[in-house]
Amino acid sequence: MTSTRPFSLAVVPGDGIGPEVTAQALRVLDVLAPQHGVAFERTEYDLGARRWHATGETLPESVLEEIRQHDAILLGAVGDPTVPSGVLERGLLLKLRFELDHYVNLRPSKLFSGVPTPLAAPGDIDFVVVREGTEGPYVGNGGAIRVGTPQEVATEVSLNTAFGVERVVRDAFARAQARPRRKLTLVHKNNVLVHAGHLWSRTVEAVGAEYPDVTVDYLHVDAATIFLATDPARFDVIVTDNLFGDILTDLAAAITGGIGLAASGNVNPDRTAPSMFEPVHGSAPDIAGQSKADPTAAILSAALLLDHLGLPEAAGQITQAVEADIAERSGARRTEEVGEAIASRVAGEVSTVS
Amino acid sequence: MTSTRPFSLAVVPGDGIGPEVTAQALRVLDVLAPQHGVAFERTEYDLGARRWHATGETLPESVLEEIRQHDAILLGAVGDPTVPSGVLERGLLLKLRFELDHYVNLRPSKLFSGVPTPLAAPGDIDFVVVREGTEGPYVGNGGAIRVGTPQEVATEVSLNTAFGVERVVRDAFARAQARPRRKLTLVHKNNVLVHAGHLWSRTVEAVGAEYPDVTVDYLHVDAATIFLATDPARFDVIVTDNLFGDILTDLAAAITGGIGLAASGNVNPDRTAPSMFEPVHGSAPDIAGQSKADPTAAILSAALLLDHLGLPEAAGQITQAVEADIAERSGARRTEEVGEAIASRVAGEVSTVS
Ligand SMILES: CC(C)[C@H](C(=O)O)[C@@H](O)C(=O)O
Ligand SMILES: CC(C)[C@H](C(=O)O)[C@@H](O)C(=O)O
Repeated sequence: MTSTRPFSLAVVPGDGIGPEVTAQALRVLDVLAPQHGVAFERTEYDLGARRWHATGETLPESVLEEIRQHDAILLGAVGDPTVPSGVLERGLLLKLRFELDHYVNLRPSKLFSGVPTPLAAPGDIDFVVVREGTEGPYVGNGGAIRVGTPQEVATEVSLNTAFGVERVVRDAFARAQARPRRKLTLVHKNNVLVHAGHLWSRTVEAVGAEYPDVTVDYLHVDAATIFLATDPARFDVIVTDNLFGDILTDLAAAITGGIGLAASGNVNPDRTAPSMFEPVHGSAPDIAGQSKADPTAAILSAALLLDHLGLPEAAGQITQAVEADIAERSGARRTEEVGEAIASRVAGEVSTVS
Repeated sequence: MTSTRPFSLAVVPGDGIGPEVTAQALRVLDVLAPQHGVAFERTEYDLGARRWHATGETLPESVLEEIRQHDAILLGAVGDPTVPSGVLERGLLLKLRFELDHYVNLRPSKLFSGVPTPLAAPGDIDFVVVREGTEGPYVGNGGAIRVGTPQEVATEVSLNTAFGVERVVRDAFARAQARPRRKLTLVHKNNVLVHAGHLWSRTVEAVGAEYPDVTVDYLHVDAATIFLATDPARFDVIVTDNLFGDILTDLAAAITGGIGLAASGNVNPDRTAPSMFEPVHGSAPDIAGQSKADPTAAILSAALLLDHLGLPEAAGQITQAVEADIAERSGARRTEEVGEAIASRVAGEVSTVS
């Protein structure tokens, strides 16, 4: 027998449907591990609404330090209607992204065959959004005075640095160059947000000079939403700011079968801290606890995790299993039924070649 | 003969296709004027790329003061590739919106029958976006240091006031109450932009108490784009911030036949300054001067202008003529052919009743 390579995973199931979909992603990882001579040693972190209610904590420093020691993080979803909006998002999810320097928020969009899309003529959708993850309007640099009075003033500051923009733009160019179409689209709003926008535009121009074989274009964010509805096949790699990336990737998910299928990786390419993988969807409190959530996005996020850990073959097995499963889907299935079906294909119990 | 009531219009054709589509809107107004015993006295303002190149001016104070004396403004489109991005947008278009206190940026979205939409099952789309027009990330409160160096830092500040949010929220509730479905959706991102977002949420809650017959819900901006793609018929009135409104209304235009049809009004409901009407689309430099632009959005914007000036019947004539024209459209028509066709219907030369 070959020796088993252990990877340590920090698992944060979170709120709402988070725990349900995470369980299915872990089940699939469990099937893959022995096939690839690896083991996933898991530590589960009880973070989210329950802990906040019990202790007032969102992400204690000591827990963050523990999580930091892992090879990767698998996260379900965060946010709960019983907690004021923003507390868990800012205090837990965004804190992890910022503290662990997840500056590449990677969100692939592919329309698998057989998936229902709201578009009449979707075309061949296959692009990836490289969303900046540690700057922009997400930095939490805002405040308010005279709250609750007619004189209230509230601000939100978008912070953008050459350092932060350049590193994510470089990552996006490298990804574009490795793809067959070699096309990069910068999305921003540089005719209104001129300071941040021009920093982005200048950076793309400068880095682009090192990638003469990558075709570059620019779209304002409003125009980009039009193309996502009318001609999404035009996109290959999109690089954009944190907030615009948030908006575009939900729309991208909608046109490729819904957020039940959309995976994401919060990647620290420098590997100075563990990267974190999570579905694009939120905690969906309205359907939590009913086994109605589609765990596919969480399972595909596990594929991104495997890729990041240097196991692209295992990642490919998941993608293939999901594609095959989707092609044969019909009717509503329970969360664990979907997980079971994909796990069986990964296990080789069901042929995934059609 | 009854006496003729004169209205003074400031006309800003602007850049690119702006002058082409504006000409068609004016042609339609010219047909309507005698029918309603009114006259439109027009003053054209040469603002945009040409003037900027010649003089360096975007909107001189003296011109702004002249424009201020009019009853309403008709604007084509602003922005030109020969001028640095942002100069004309910030210096002309946004300056007009801010100086003339256009705090309600009104953008109706209706799917006219016969209009091609990218959605497979669009449903009955008929909503209006009330976009805040004088605050948020559009205030121009940003800056940058060490520009062009690896140490560059650029900021954009979103400014939000109780005063500014409350007045636009009140306007949106009044509109919702006057519509059959009486539904208002607040769109923001209050789980991340917590200070601005909570100001919006609290304001909607407070004002909503005065409108018990209006149903209120809330969507994060990312989720709102999903619904625009999957279930746009769910929307009645959307109230949102300046930047989110910009993004949502381009997407809204895309699903209702494209920006060639999307009208908008920059409204000062207090009438302390003239309101301004313009298509949602931009100057489209790629097709400028080729008579390829669809002037329908500009013509529908003229309908919003008539409504604002107290001529709802004349406005209705335009809407009906456009609906009838669209229902019979086939093949590409030149800009002036579309204008001619709609003008003829408004003139009663073609029956608009099918
Ligand atoms: C939950 C929320 C804070 C988060 C975000 O805005 O980034 C989510 O929408 C996402 O896209 O991952
Ligand atoms: C041209 C641009 C400044 C403008 C905006 O962002 O408001 C346009 O996109 C619009 O929607 O009217």
